[in-house]
Amino acid sequence: MSNVELLPVLDSSVVVPCCPPLTERPLDAEEAERAAKMFKALGDPVRLRLFSAVASHEGGEACVCDISDVGVSQPTVSHHLKKLKEAGLLSSERRGTWVYYRVEPSVVAAMGKLLAGAATV
Amino acid sequence: MSNVELLPVLDSSVVVPCCPPLTERPLDAEEAERAAKMFKALGDPVRLRLFSAVASHEGGEACVCDISDVGVSQPTVSHHLKKLKEAGLLSSERRGTWVYYRVEPSVVAAMGKLLAGAATV
Repeated sequence: MSNVELLPVLDSSVVVPCCPPLTERPLDAEEAERAAKMFKALGDPVRLRLFSAVASHEGGEACVCDISDVGVSQPTVSHHLKKLKEAGLLSSERRGTWVYYRVEPSVVAAMGKLLAGAATV
Repeated sequence: MSNVELLPVLDSSVVVPCCPPLTERPLDAEEAERAAKMFKALGDPVRLRLFSAVASHEGGEACVCDISDVGVSQPTVSHHLKKLKEAGLLSSERRGTWVYYRVEPSVVAAMGKLLAGAATV
């Protein structure tokens, strides 16, 4: 047995995992502030459609150029994608002309975990 | 073997299950409208604290009288609990003087399911 692998490998995401399952104990003010920000980002129908468009796109990523059927202009799409990124739900990478967005699995998993507990009450 | 148990027992919730996992395909406008309403209800820090206070309360239910430590007045607590109920996340029952709230597991499970898919992209 070697000690080499004892330290956990942290991913490079800047978004810190947030909050215990909602059934465990009442969230404190700071936790609620952080988690509410993520839920709020998905609390808009257009943003939610865009998020699902990215999440379900081939290869798990999409650029504005791939998303055109939600009935809003391209600048509006860009604006909403930026909001989702600020909430930590999407990450982005510029490649040539376009910025490509992908779902940030650790953050979305944390949201799912928050709810998973509450669903079994 | 008897046939008596073959039919699933449906719970009496009026809230219909919503939407495929976000990775499956882009949500359509109507699905996004419904799901965004649920996320929006949790997109406020005070409401999220109240929701976790109910979800983590003994017996899985709580009345306004049980929740007093989120730093807002009792009428404000009542207002937010009503909003959570309107979004389908809580159900309520009046018993004597107080209205008791509990988490609506099917709706919260549906929200978790929406995200669960997206977290594995």
